[in-house]
Amino acid sequence: MTDTASRRRGRRTRTESAGTRDRILSVAREEFSQRGYEKTSVRGIAKAAGVDPALVHHYFGTKEQVFEAAIEVAFAPALNAPEAFAEGSPAEVGERLTRFIFGIWENPTTRTPLLAIVRSAVNNEAAAAVFRRLVASQLLRRIASQLDLPDAELRAELAAAQLVGCAMLRYVIKVEPLVSADIEQVIARVAPVVQGHLTSP
Amino acid sequence: MTDTASRRRGRRTRTESAGTRDRILSVAREEFSQRGYEKTSVRGIAKAAGVDPALVHHYFGTKEQVFEAAIEVAFAPALNAPEAFAEGSPAEVGERLTRFIFGIWENPTTRTPLLAIVRSAVNNEAAAAVFRRLVASQLLRRIASQLDLPDAELRAELAAAQLVGCAMLRYVIKVEPLVSADIEQVIARVAPVVQGHLTSP
Repeated sequence: MTDTASRRRGRRTRTESAGTRDRILSVAREEFSQRGYEKTSVRGIAKAAGVDPALVHHYFGTKEQVFEAAIEVAFAPALNAPEAFAEGSPAEVGERLTRFIFGIWENPTTRTPLLAIVRSAVNNEAAAAVFRRLVASQLLRRIASQLDLPDAELRAELAAAQLVGCAMLRYVIKVEPLVSADIEQVIARVAPVVQGHLTSP
Repeated sequence: MTDTASRRRGRRTRTESAGTRDRILSVAREEFSQRGYEKTSVRGIAKAAGVDPALVHHYFGTKEQVFEAAIEVAFAPALNAPEAFAEGSPAEVGERLTRFIFGIWENPTTRTPLLAIVRSAVNNEAAAAVFRRLVASQLLRRIASQLDLPDAELRAELAAAQLVGCAMLRYVIKVEPLVSADIEQVIARVAPVVQGHLTSP
């Protein structure tokens, strides 16, 4: 360890440390978005963030764990879905959830990192594992816990499948006429399906 | 051109030619599946097929056109969906189409090339363009032409979105509980949704 690194590590204040951690995360998100999971390395992230690779490992662990931390932030808006789900009338849960998810995809700021996650998860098993953990444990399980029905998790996942499929065709592969369709028209058709998966007898 | 190449081109019989063309296509499918679109080259396909790259260009044109020819064959089972759609009672069209599409994904022989197509289309714009053309013109438009309803293409695409989402979560990213769910239980839940998209007023 150089004198500078040792000094940094020894005297880093809480604020400096949080700043560095956030900078690494932000750079990691950028690198994963630009290059995809496979071509991104901890060394590359460290270099772009102007820190030692050991510091990246210190904060986050392996490349898979850096990826998980980076996409958890990108995923954060979607992880509020169970709250959107919980509020208001049960008869409108399909529309609330549908509107919430399309809201994330329609906004370029939240869409770009999601696109990066989907692209990585489709092509790399480690990235897929991270995606699975986040979707299964944080999203489906939490939504399912609010349903008082048998097969609640399967119901939540089939509702998610309708939304995932729309996102794939509208935002990822971009197949017409869904790309140009008015989003309110799409929500009007999709919300009852999501509602049906979640609450139909 | 060498004497041999000139002799080959001059005297190739129809059978020899079809055999070579098929061998190139089969090798191309293999290469695109193994390496993905971006890492596959016409030169690599030619080498693996034991032919001159010029012959690959002669038969198929650009790399994008080789890809299109290769995936058209992989896509062929799905392209029969409009026929599956047309036969039998209109009240059961949702179940027929759902059963047909899951039949392709449940069979490893037809699943593997489809996985390769999806992975390529998600990550590469040229591959996405090919996917779009095939899905839009050959699948959605043909199904829509059999629906006597406004927004027929949007209806067909939203039905496709439910199936695409299920395929993503069950076969590509592999999120439980959908991965282990009994396929008949999945079809029982998805078929009415597909039916609804296609035929509900």
